[in-house]
Amino acid sequence: MNILYDAALDGALPHNDKAEVLADLQAATPGLTLLHREEDLRPFECDGLSAYRVLPMLVALPETLDQVETLLKRCRALGVPVVTRGAGTGLSGGALPLEQGVLLVMSRFNRILDIDPDARTMRVQPGVRNLAISEAASPYGLYYAPDPSSQIACSIGGNVAENAGGVHCLKYGLTVHNVMKVEVITIEGERMTLGSEALDAPGFDLLALFTGSEGMLGVVTEITVKLLPKPETAKVLMASFDDVEKAGRAVGDIIAAGIIPGGLEMMDKLAIQAAEDFVKAGYPVEAEAILLCELDGVEADVDDDCATVRRVLEAAGATGIQQARDDAERAKFWAGRKNAFPAVGRMSPDYYCMDGTIPRRELPRVLKGIADFSEQYGLRVANVFHAGDGNMHPLILFDANQPGELEQAEELGGKILELCVEVGGSITGEHGVGREKINQMCAQFNPGELTIFHAVKAAFDPERLLNPGKNIPTLARCAEFGAMHVHNNQLPHPDLPRF
Amino acid sequence: MNILYDAALDGALPHNDKAEVLADLQAATPGLTLLHREEDLRPFECDGLSAYRVLPMLVALPETLDQVETLLKRCRALGVPVVTRGAGTGLSGGALPLEQGVLLVMSRFNRILDIDPDARTMRVQPGVRNLAISEAASPYGLYYAPDPSSQIACSIGGNVAENAGGVHCLKYGLTVHNVMKVEVITIEGERMTLGSEALDAPGFDLLALFTGSEGMLGVVTEITVKLLPKPETAKVLMASFDDVEKAGRAVGDIIAAGIIPGGLEMMDKLAIQAAEDFVKAGYPVEAEAILLCELDGVEADVDDDCATVRRVLEAAGATGIQQARDDAERAKFWAGRKNAFPAVGRMSPDYYCMDGTIPRRELPRVLKGIADFSEQYGLRVANVFHAGDGNMHPLILFDANQPGELEQAEELGGKILELCVEVGGSITGEHGVGREKINQMCAQFNPGELTIFHAVKAAFDPERLLNPGKNIPTLARCAEFGAMHVHNNQLPHPDLPRF
Repeated sequence: MNILYDAALDGALPHNDKAEVLADLQAATPGLTLLHREEDLRPFECDGLSAYRVLPMLVALPETLDQVETLLKRCRALGVPVVTRGAGTGLSGGALPLEQGVLLVMSRFNRILDIDPDARTMRVQPGVRNLAISEAASPYGLYYAPDPSSQIACSIGGNVAENAGGVHCLKYGLTVHNVMKVEVITIEGERMTLGSEALDAPGFDLLALFTGSEGMLGVVTEITVKLLPKPETAKVLMASFDDVEKAGRAVGDIIAAGIIPGGLEMMDKLAIQAAEDFVKAGYPVEAEAILLCELDGVEADVDDDCATVRRVLEAAGATGIQQARDDAERAKFWAGRKNAFPAVGRMSPDYYCMDGTIPRRELPRVLKGIADFSEQYGLRVANVFHAGDGNMHPLILFDANQPGELEQAEELGGKILELCVEVGGSITGEHGVGREKINQMCAQFNPGELTIFHAVKAAFDPERLLNPGKNIPTLARCAEFGAMHVHNNQLPHPDLPRF
Repeated sequence: MNILYDAALDGALPHNDKAEVLADLQAATPGLTLLHREEDLRPFECDGLSAYRVLPMLVALPETLDQVETLLKRCRALGVPVVTRGAGTGLSGGALPLEQGVLLVMSRFNRILDIDPDARTMRVQPGVRNLAISEAASPYGLYYAPDPSSQIACSIGGNVAENAGGVHCLKYGLTVHNVMKVEVITIEGERMTLGSEALDAPGFDLLALFTGSEGMLGVVTEITVKLLPKPETAKVLMASFDDVEKAGRAVGDIIAAGIIPGGLEMMDKLAIQAAEDFVKAGYPVEAEAILLCELDGVEADVDDDCATVRRVLEAAGATGIQQARDDAERAKFWAGRKNAFPAVGRMSPDYYCMDGTIPRRELPRVLKGIADFSEQYGLRVANVFHAGDGNMHPLILFDANQPGELEQAEELGGKILELCVEVGGSITGEHGVGREKINQMCAQFNPGELTIFHAVKAAFDPERLLNPGKNIPTLARCAEFGAMHVHNNQLPHPDLPRF
């Protein structure tokens, strides 16, 4: 099965003549950087989900709003689909190009436009890196809360497209809770302001609708983010457990004790060992699971909370509790967690990173289920969780060179996501649907719900030119793969080629 | 100008035969309470915006989901518009009935379905009163944060429809930030779940889209709200100022000092005197303005914050600072604020309550502008603000029996809202657009933005049968009133009859 067949499933895309499109865009947008030679296109063939690769027809690197506007208008007139890309760190193939489409790369929109420390807001262009926002806010004692593990590299525009999360999101919310206003350009070339600097905006909440829409509704050209005061202090507790389900229960106990930690992360034995081996974080390699619990705020408050969390952890059966002695040790504890994916990657020729969300109370049950699946399929699974908000990242280890192992890993991954939906959760936490989970959306939503999604999409982009084939599956796709789902009692497989 | 002409402006509504519609609905939904006699309809002719009154054709009081579903399907088949109503406390006429429409009253859906203290969630029916949620959560040490002044009476379904705010929203967010999941029925009778119990849901954020959509997209039949732990303690400071702009600046200073109060409210001299006269709150009647600042959290933290806020208030020129000595005095301080509207109402034959939002930093400028308008029009304006989040409620005092005063009050109100938009704010904070501000939406949004709103609306309700004529103006309406706007350099007047 190849990408063209797949696109056809979602409504046949036009076959545009590359030379004609290039000539048209060059004539319409003088000064716009347009890449068209294969060697120039190659770096853009995938995002962070590198298993999926497609060479775009053209890559555009605009530097002005007028260029974006003209490009979109021309693409619409020509019927050429457009995929917008930020830094390309996404993990679900949301920025995977189309062979017949233009890849609109927003990386040159990388300026910080305005900081208002009193209003605690910053206006930035979409290509500004997530961490650069906090760095620019730092002299004012402020920071931007959502912190994906890729925050050194990922751009705020991509964060908006994917409604990115991170360690701090349990306490401080997702991207949607930390963005006040965006400027967008629609496929018709129309400029719009969504949201406002005021608390609420009248009319429908199009800002929230745009956030997480994966580039399907328009192109974000400017973002006003909320900034928060940096907490006076932050302390981290690391608790060891001899049983992974006990650790899962402790997560719920901490929240039930009335505490919302700045971060509450969980890793199981395999992840602990991989991280320790890789970054020497000081983790207890004999433990079956660890919890990392960060408490932030004013000193007295944080000390009180640390004492409460200690009591809860002890009651939950922690075999050891260690508090980071200083900021250096605290950074080390977090370095292990933030590098867990590459660390696990070193243990195995290949790994498949899952991203599902479950109600917190189901954590022990789902952990048990994952262990059972792992045994059943004979594949190791390392578990790294944003445990506090129920966002799981099981990493399935496999060797693509062993015949059948890739398929086994995919099937196991499907089982895990199916379990997430079964317990009332969802097939994605923070990595988005993108290309990767387009089929699983058929399991999450019924045809009536998908029809509404398409109608909302059509309100912005009736010809479906913006990022087609991502995020929202067509009913035709679901009819084909949904049938598979019913017969096999399992989630449909991703159907894209791997290289 | 009467309501029929007005409806015609928004696309002529069908003239249904009341007896035929009644017979059809009675036959289709046996057991459904349907009111049709004028004396039974009379109590439903208005919501909290009592200046606008229309007798509905029929009132339906369903008790089951099947009744709601059948009713909606039949109304769609007959082409009868449907206005959904909760407790009817809304202040912008969002639940104003239509002469040719069915008023769907959800008050009998008033059961609390489930409390999960560990997950800190509660599942409720839409007719449950806002305060009843916190009361039911109280034994678990939890509460529901958004607290409109009408919280004793208003229903959670109405809160979702209007994205209601309240004193606590500065710190804890609006309704949209405190709702996890809703069950809805569309005009086609389709049942859908929006949002999830997990942190995030894939696909477009239809939950946020529904929240604040004023009954235009579907009927909410069940709501899962987030609960928060009750803070260990809460303390209130009251600061007096001899100048209203100084008080406005102090608001920004408090936030800039890194403190997010549980509540931060402001009242000017007229409001202070009215409230003091009405509820004996212990307010300083000689002050030009007061700020009420509530700090909540753990004891040590709150004491620290109180000290910081005191310093900020002194530096900002407060002439007096008083801390409520106990919960009784704290309740008294708040009683003055929460009863400010009726208190002001006692001072004048009539008053017009405005609701606008501005960026916090513009507070002094806008206060100055309101004072100037007040002088210019010779009408007194009492100011009551959710100052922390820039949500203003100027109350314009007038006497409708004095020829021309109503028109003058409306014009003054328009000037205030125009100023809100001018400084980067919006024409509504928490009361919604409803019927009242439908014309002002033409000032807030351009035709391109309104076209998108209509397209999104059409995704759910292509025949525009749900709450037509509210929230989102037609382009025809804006063309007519927008022209007025350009010529007069002022906002168009509300064009509805008053009784």
